[in-house]
Amino acid sequence: MTYFDQRRALIDAHLAELAANVPAPGPLLAPIRDALVSPGKRVRGLLAIAVGEALGSRADKLLDAAAAMEMIHASSLILDDLPAMDDAVMRRGRPALHRAHGEDLAILASVALLNHAYGLVSRNHAALSPRRWSAADAMQRVVEAVGWDGTIAGEAVDLHSEQSPLDFDTLEFIHSRKTGALFVAAAALGAMLANADVSTVRRIEIYAKNLGLAFQITDDVLDVTGTAEQLGKDVGKDEEKLTFVKLAGVEGARQLAGELVETSLAAIASMRAAADPLRELAVMVRDRTR
Amino acid sequence: MTYFDQRRALIDAHLAELAANVPAPGPLLAPIRDALVSPGKRVRGLLAIAVGEALGSRADKLLDAAAAMEMIHASSLILDDLPAMDDAVMRRGRPALHRAHGEDLAILASVALLNHAYGLVSRNHAALSPRRWSAADAMQRVVEAVGWDGTIAGEAVDLHSEQSPLDFDTLEFIHSRKTGALFVAAAALGAMLANADVSTVRRIEIYAKNLGLAFQITDDVLDVTGTAEQLGKDVGKDEEKLTFVKLAGVEGARQLAGELVETSLAAIASMRAAADPLRELAVMVRDRTR
Repeated sequence: MTYFDQRRALIDAHLAELAANVPAPGPLLAPIRDALVSPGKRVRGLLAIAVGEALGSRADKLLDAAAAMEMIHASSLILDDLPAMDDAVMRRGRPALHRAHGEDLAILASVALLNHAYGLVSRNHAALSPRRWSAADAMQRVVEAVGWDGTIAGEAVDLHSEQSPLDFDTLEFIHSRKTGALFVAAAALGAMLANADVSTVRRIEIYAKNLGLAFQITDDVLDVTGTAEQLGKDVGKDEEKLTFVKLAGVEGARQLAGELVETSLAAIASMRAAADPLRELAVMVRDRTR
Repeated sequence: MTYFDQRRALIDAHLAELAANVPAPGPLLAPIRDALVSPGKRVRGLLAIAVGEALGSRADKLLDAAAAMEMIHASSLILDDLPAMDDAVMRRGRPALHRAHGEDLAILASVALLNHAYGLVSRNHAALSPRRWSAADAMQRVVEAVGWDGTIAGEAVDLHSEQSPLDFDTLEFIHSRKTGALFVAAAALGAMLANADVSTVRRIEIYAKNLGLAFQITDDVLDVTGTAEQLGKDVGKDEEKLTFVKLAGVEGARQLAGELVETSLAAIASMRAAADPLRELAVMVRDRTR
C-alpha cells in the first residue's frame, strides 16, 4: 500500500469506529452512520494527516482532526445534494442521503455531523495541547472555514450566481470558499497539532489554498469528461453554473489546475523530505483528470 | 424596566450589532440578519446571563454566551419550520425564514448561525478564561446539547414518533432534548464563565433542566389555548404529535409544569439573594399559561 492508501485506511477505520458508537436515537442513527462510512477519497483528512506528519506529529494523533474534517465535508455534501440545492440523486456511488432517509433526517444528520466534528476538534486539541496553539485557535480556523464567509458563503453564491455573466472573480470567490476553505482548515489543523510556528502554518495554508482550488477545477473538468459511474455522483449538474471549464475550456482548466499546483509546491519548496507526501498529494490532484 | 427587560434589551442590542457586522455575501446576508434580529423572548440568553450574574460575573461578560445561545436557538427554529419538518408558515410574528428567503438560503443561514455561535462560545471563553473551565469544557457542553443525543435527537424523534402510542418516556426524551438540553447548556455556560465550582454547576444544571421541561410543557399548553397572533407562530401544529397536553390535559399539563418549576427552585434553594432573578424566571415560566 502507498502512504496515502495506508492513511486512508486509518481514517476509514476511525470513521467506522465512530459510526459504531453514535448514541443517536433510532430514526437518526442510520443516516448518520451512512454518512460517516460512505466511501470517499478522504482528501481533506489525508491533508490534515500528511501535513501533521510532515511537521513531526504522528498519524494516530492526527486521526480525530482528520475524521472531523471528513465529517464536515460529508455534512456539506448532504446539504449540497438536497432538493432545495443541487437536487442530486447519487453521491459516492449510493443514493444521496435525502433519497435514502428523507429530507428531514438528512438535514438533521448533516447538522449532527458538523456539530460532532466541532466537539472532536476542540476536545482533541485540548487533549494534545500543542504549546503554540489553543483549542480556541483550532476552533477559530474551522469556524471561519465553514461559516458565513467560508463554505456556506461559497455555496450560497454558487446557488445564486446562475444568472450572472461568467466572471472569474465570482468563480474564485465561490471555489476558494466551497472547497479551498476546508482544505486550508484541514492543513492548518494538522500543522497546529504538530506545534508548527506561525510562518510554517502560513506556508502550509498557501499550499492548501492553491491545492483546494486546483482540486475544485479538476472536479469541474471531471463533471464534463467523467461518467456518473466513475465519479459515483451525478454529472452534468454544473450546466447552469459558473465553472472554470466554461470560462477556460477543458484544456484551459487543466492548465490552470497545473499552475495552481505549481504555486502549491512552491509554498512548501523549502520543507524537508518529510513533506514529500504533500508534494505527492499535489501531483495526484493535478493528474486526476489525465 | 425590570431586570429581565433590561437584560433582554442588552441581548437584542448585541444581536443587532452582530447582524450589522456579518461579512456574508449578498444572498446569505438578508436571511442571516433576519434570523439574528427576529424578535424573541430570549429565554436561553437570559438564563445564561441571570445564572452568570447570580454567581458573581457581570452582564457584559456574559453577552457573547447569551447571544450564542440565542443564535443556536434561532438556527434550530429555522430547521424546525422547514417544509420537510413542521412546514410552518409563521414564526415570531413574521414569515418563517424559508418562506421569506427560500429553502436553500434558510438552511444555509441556519448552519451559518450554529457555526458562528460555536466560534463565539469558544473565543469568548478563551478570552475570559475562568480558572476552573477551559474553552474545550464550554464547547463540550454546547456540542452535547445540540448534537445527536441533544436537540437534533429530540427533533428527529419528535418528527418520527407520530405513529407511536402516547408514551411519557418518549415525550420526556423529546422535550428534555429539544428544549431542556439548550437550557442546560445556557445555564452551564453562564455558571462556567462565573468560574463556579463543579457542584454549583451541577445544581444550576438541575435547575435549568427542570425549567426547560416546564417551558416546553407550557409551550404545549399555549399551542392549544393561544392564538397565532398572541404567539407569533403557527398554532395547532402539534395535532399529530405527542404532547403533554394530550397525555394529561390542559390542567394536568399546567400542574406538571408547576411541579417541575418547584423542582427547579429546590435545586437553587440554598443560593443567596443574587439568585433571586433565577427564582423570578422560574415563576415567569410557570405563569405564562395563566
